[in-house]
Amino acid sequence: MKPRIRCDDLEVFALPGLPVFSPGDDLAAAIVNAAACSQITLRDDDVLAVTSKAVSRCEGRIVPLASVTCSAAALRLADEVGKDARLVELILGESAAVSRCGPNVLITRHRLGFVTANSGVDASNAVLVSGREAHGPWVILLPIDPDASALGLRNALREQLGVDVGVVITDSFGRPFRLGTVGAAIGVSGLPPLWDKRGEVDLFERALEQTITALADQVAAAADLVAGQGAERRAVVVVRGLKFARSEDGAGVLCRDPARDLYA
Amino acid sequence: MKPRIRCDDLEVFALPGLPVFSPGDDLAAAIVNAAACSQITLRDDDVLAVTSKAVSRCEGRIVPLASVTCSAAALRLADEVGKDARLVELILGESAAVSRCGPNVLITRHRLGFVTANSGVDASNAVLVSGREAHGPWVILLPIDPDASALGLRNALREQLGVDVGVVITDSFGRPFRLGTVGAAIGVSGLPPLWDKRGEVDLFERALEQTITALADQVAAAADLVAGQGAERRAVVVVRGLKFARSEDGAGVLCRDPARDLYA
Repeated sequence: MKPRIRCDDLEVFALPGLPVFSPGDDLAAAIVNAAACSQITLRDDDVLAVTSKAVSRCEGRIVPLASVTCSAAALRLADEVGKDARLVELILGESAAVSRCGPNVLITRHRLGFVTANSGVDASNAVLVSGREAHGPWVILLPIDPDASALGLRNALREQLGVDVGVVITDSFGRPFRLGTVGAAIGVSGLPPLWDKRGEVDLFERALEQTITALADQVAAAADLVAGQGAERRAVVVVRGLKFARSEDGAGVLCRDPARDLYA
Repeated sequence: MKPRIRCDDLEVFALPGLPVFSPGDDLAAAIVNAAACSQITLRDDDVLAVTSKAVSRCEGRIVPLASVTCSAAALRLADEVGKDARLVELILGESAAVSRCGPNVLITRHRLGFVTANSGVDASNAVLVSGREAHGPWVILLPIDPDASALGLRNALREQLGVDVGVVITDSFGRPFRLGTVGAAIGVSGLPPLWDKRGEVDLFERALEQTITALADQVAAAADLVAGQGAERRAVVVVRGLKFARSEDGAGVLCRDPARDLYA
């Protein structure tokens, strides 16, 4: 059965008072604490959009470039694209395939299926905590299993607060054809990543044709308007007002099969 | 000088009470009336996201398929993709180039530069008004000049309400790599389509690398969560809470130069 979704007016707001996370931090506990301090009561049907960087930090997905040993393939590709070979080694380790590359551009199919620049490996905001900066530069990799991270956070909040929220782990993706990045969902728990409206009828009682919207990606985009980038103290954004039936689909359902992708 | 943008908490809500529009309707007057009836006071810095379908209806961009004469090129392509040749003729008339095609799929570069299925020509929700249904089927084309439509609406609201809102004309786009449609901006006035944060620093005082976000597309995605598709009575969504410097850029700045697009 298709989940039913009704969308009323939305509020989109950042959870205030979160720290910059470090490896080992308890993200759920931090959210519970921040909500309590700001007198925000999370509700069933709230969706929490959490930046992948915050999740990666808590999960320790931070690597000092100095620790990386480069393969011959990484050295060759680094030479071709003009990037640090250690960075390319890490990117290839996160990738199932190279999609396109060029001068200073390396677009890959991440091991989890989505296509993005550098498989999400990010050097822009990675320096850790003051005591360890001397060993930098460091880079941040995406979470090992963002769907599991989303489910874990959802379960922890259910245990600690008694609410069943939806969780979307977000990243910023570039796109073919269009400039600028947009928020995208790389991990999902609780809400349907795709909102399938086929079979519903339009205002004139005809069946809708193109009617599967990327609900989780649009939640990520709305949250990114509030979270911004480089603004890790807005790492958790609450999207309030969506009504959705619970879904156990992960973000993988958003990925088009490469064999059926005219741009693969 | 780069516009400065600060993003506080957002509210995203549909303007209630709008009609299904017909050719010749005055969109600005309808918005003024709907806002008054629902006691909503529009503000400077509100962004109005308006579906392209509502704009196209008001502007009469509705064509009866029976009126279309097919070129040889349309007949050939229609045979190749398995679509109605009259529909293909209209699509080609709106297109600068075919990007990809396949069985029941025709992805084109619209004459305005963006890449989308069928150049936005839509048969799903087109039937007009009861008196004219007998002459259907009809299809809706995108507005002739969505940036001009956005500017016209902005100017009319400034005259009638004394507020300077941002306007985004939205459509739903499919995408390479990912399933499901997302809201995209095809016309913009007032707010910067791209939010350029290069030169700003991250939490650790390093310059951000990937820091141009597609502000207008993310506004469109957030609005689409509320507007849905096939829900033309939610044709105007107010996104409240963005702070932005005025910009005169149109939606064209969101389109990547095909010569620099690895997926063109």
